[in-house]
Parts: sequence; structure tokens; C-alpha cells
Amino acid sequence: MSLNKQVKIILIETTNSGNIGSALRAMKTMGFDNLCLVSPKDFPSENVETMAANARDLIGRIQVTQNLDEALEGIHFVVGTSSRMRKVPWPNEALDKVAATIIMEANIKKNIAIIFGREDRGLTNDELQRCNLHVNIPANPEYPVLNLAMAVQVVCYQLYIESFRELKSSSQDHWDVPMAEANHIQRLIEHFIEVAEQLEVFNKGNPRQIGARIKRMFTRIGLDEMEVNFMRGFLAAVEKKLEDK
Amino acid sequence: MSLNKQVKIILIETTNSGNIGSALRAMKTMGFDNLCLVSPKDFPSENVETMAANARDLIGRIQVTQNLDEALEGIHFVVGTSSRMRKVPWPNEALDKVAATIIMEANIKKNIAIIFGREDRGLTNDELQRCNLHVNIPANPEYPVLNLAMAVQVVCYQLYIESFRELKSSSQDHWDVPMAEANHIQRLIEHFIEVAEQLEVFNKGNPRQIGARIKRMFTRIGLDEMEVNFMRGFLAAVEKKLEDK
Repeated sequence: MSLNKQVKIILIETTNSGNIGSALRAMKTMGFDNLCLVSPKDFPSENVETMAANARDLIGRIQVTQNLDEALEGIHFVVGTSSRMRKVPWPNEALDKVAATIIMEANIKKNIAIIFGREDRGLTNDELQRCNLHVNIPANPEYPVLNLAMAVQVVCYQLYIESFRELKSSSQDHWDVPMAEANHIQRLIEHFIEVAEQLEVFNKGNPRQIGARIKRMFTRIGLDEMEVNFMRGFLAAVEKKLEDK
Repeated sequence: MSLNKQVKIILIETTNSGNIGSALRAMKTMGFDNLCLVSPKDFPSENVETMAANARDLIGRIQVTQNLDEALEGIHFVVGTSSRMRKVPWPNEALDKVAATIIMEANIKKNIAIIFGREDRGLTNDELQRCNLHVNIPANPEYPVLNLAMAVQVVCYQLYIESFRELKSSSQDHWDVPMAEANHIQRLIEHFIEVAEQLEVFNKGNPRQIGARIKRMFTRIGLDEMEVNFMRGFLAAVEKKLEDK
């Protein structure tokens, strides 16, 4: 599978050329570079370049067509974005629920088009009926109206993360210091309690099971070795001052 | 839990006021309405209104502050958005992996701030060190640079869909003490560093960015009020001994 080759983003009759540039930038941030404009109202335009920012290298590759048929050539699976409920209900799925399906279609080598409608009226019924699937972006029912380029960003983001599921590792894998052993943390806790007792801080308004609270605090943090060593050094320095006294 | 009441979106030193309007619209589409601007470069501005579209009813409710401290008042859990890798790795998680954690924090009644940095330079190290958690939006490694308002849209979308997932239960649901406010933890950290300096423990084999490490240790733990109070009492007792000497 090569998502960026197989997925084509189609914008129909876009009015605001700034949205075209923003959509292109949004696509590039998620690794997509295949944009098609059906009868854009204002293209080419300087606004596209301005809003595309560092995706402007992709402007030259934008496909422009007269109609949707032409745009859908070579496409196997058509997804329409839509928030409106239709008279004739179409399979309409929430983006987060359906991203896996779209990725699966790509996995079996289908070319996929994702169609976004006009800023003011979305997709026509004719256009929606060309789609295998309607997708809605889950949104505030009182104001579900995402800007066009925002919608492109969210759809591309959801497909991007879906394409990586199970591949991603957490940053904690790259912690710069090894995690401390439980026994070292245990010794730190004992040391801390000892010092706290010497400082007589236990009974000064800290009544409620403070020993248990200290243990809980230091164990749940997940300390690394350097942190344990530093805290031990800190406590040793306090003790030394107490002895010197 | 009431996500829109508990989550505050903070934009720091935003240059382009259009981005403020776009961010507000993005927030509203996902049910968020709590926006705070720290030292915006161009606000109020007509651009805000234009780009906010039908979210312009929320403009009057935007909070504007001089600094981050003020913005974080009453906040318990601070999330910083960041794509950069740091010298001292902070817990940095992919948005899609960590949304559940953020929702869980809201479930236990924490107020949450999500901070977005400047258009050109993101967040400073100081700002990032105020955060309990760093979040990155998974993106094309060759061009991971989302427009500011796009980043707000994606983060709000991910939290919105996550808030509908089945509520996961956690032992933290039954925490017995209220969580500490971010500003209280900040003061604890400053106090700790002061005492550590007086004890001269910084240069004894603890060379590597120890200040940042201390901040990281105390912010990632998620301290409750009693723990903060106890640690402050502990440090005060150490200081007293140092003075007596």
C-alpha cells in the first residue's frame, strides 16, 4: 500500500482559493499529495501559493478537471464527505469509525477518492450518489460546520494515524535514562522518610497516613535512575547539614 | 465531566489574528468555547471576526492575559503541543494515543489547559517545562508543520471523539485529595531548586540539565494538594535547619 499514491483528494467548485492552498498544506502535513480540483472558481491564484506555505512545491501537480467523471477516472472506491442527512439514507459513517475501512480498501490496492463539496452547499445529491460511502466528521451538533480546509486536515489526519496503527511506539521508548529498579525506589522512599523524621515534619499538620502518601507519590511517578540518584544526593546533603549542626 | 467547561485552549503570542478566529471556529465545531490568548500580537482585530464565521458569538468571551501564569490559574493539568524533540525528553505522546488520558484527567474533575505556541517558533523550553504532558500531532516527518488553527482543529476533534468512547474506569476516579493547581506545583519546583542550590547538590555528579530534570520529575507525577503541601513543609524545614546553622 502506498497511501499517498492511492488516495486522491477532490475539491468540487471551490470558491475561496485560499482554501485550496490551505487544503494542500493540510494534505502534505499528513503525507498526501494528490489533489484534484473540479471546476474551481478561482484557480490559479496567488492565494493558493500564500496559503500552501511549504506545500507550494505541490501546486504544479494539482489536477484540474471540468467535471467529477473526469476526476474519478481510475478510481475504485469513492468517499463523499457530508454532514447533511439525506432524504434517501446512504451509508453514512463517522470518520473515526470508518477510517479503518478506507485503509483496508487501499490495502487491497484500490484507488480511493475522497470528495469535498462547495464551501456553502457541500455536495449535490447527484455527486453523493456517485459515492460508495458517505463520511461525516463527528462534530458539535449545534455547529458542525468545519471550514473546508479544516475538514481536509481532519480527514487526512484520521487516515494517516489509522495507517500506522500498531506501528507507532511511544516516546517513552526513547527515554534518555534507564528507569530505576523498584528496589532503588524503595530505598529512596526509606531514606526520604528517615530524613523527614529527623526534620520533624511529620506532625506539623501532615497527619493523614503521610508515610503511605510518600510511598504512593514516589512509586507512581515512575522515576528514572538519574532522578533517584539525584534525590538520594539531595537527601544525603540534608543529612550532612543536620549532622554538622 | 463537562469538557467544554474544563478544557481551556491557550494560544501564546499569536501573530496572525486570522488564526485566532479560525481557531475559535475550529473549537466551536468540536464543542469547545474556552479560549485564552497570552499576549496576542494583534487582538482585537477584524480578522478574528471574519475567520470565526459562526463562532463569532464566542469572541466576547475570549480571555486575554499578559503571561502564562495568569492563564494557568485554576488549571490542574497542563498539556503542551510540541513537535520538537528536546534535549531532556519530556513525556511526549502522540495525540491519538494520549487523548484518552486527557479525557480521564477531565473525568476526575481536573481543569485542563492545552497550550499552542507561536506560529513560527512554537513553545519555549520554559513554557514546555510547565506542562505535565507534551503532545505531538502525528504528521508527515518531512513536513509536520500544521497551521496553528489546523492544529487546534485536530486536537479538539481528537478529544471530541475520544469523549464519546466508553468511559474507562481507573483507580484515579477515587483519588482522595484534590489535585494541585499547576501554579502551586510551579512554586514547589522553584522552592526545591532554591533549597538544592543552598545544599550545593547541583554539581556533585549531577551535571546533565538537572534543573530541567527536576521540573520534569515534579510535573509528570501529577501531584495532589496534600503532597505539594507536605513537600513545601519538608523544604521549609530543611531551610530552617540551614539558617539555624
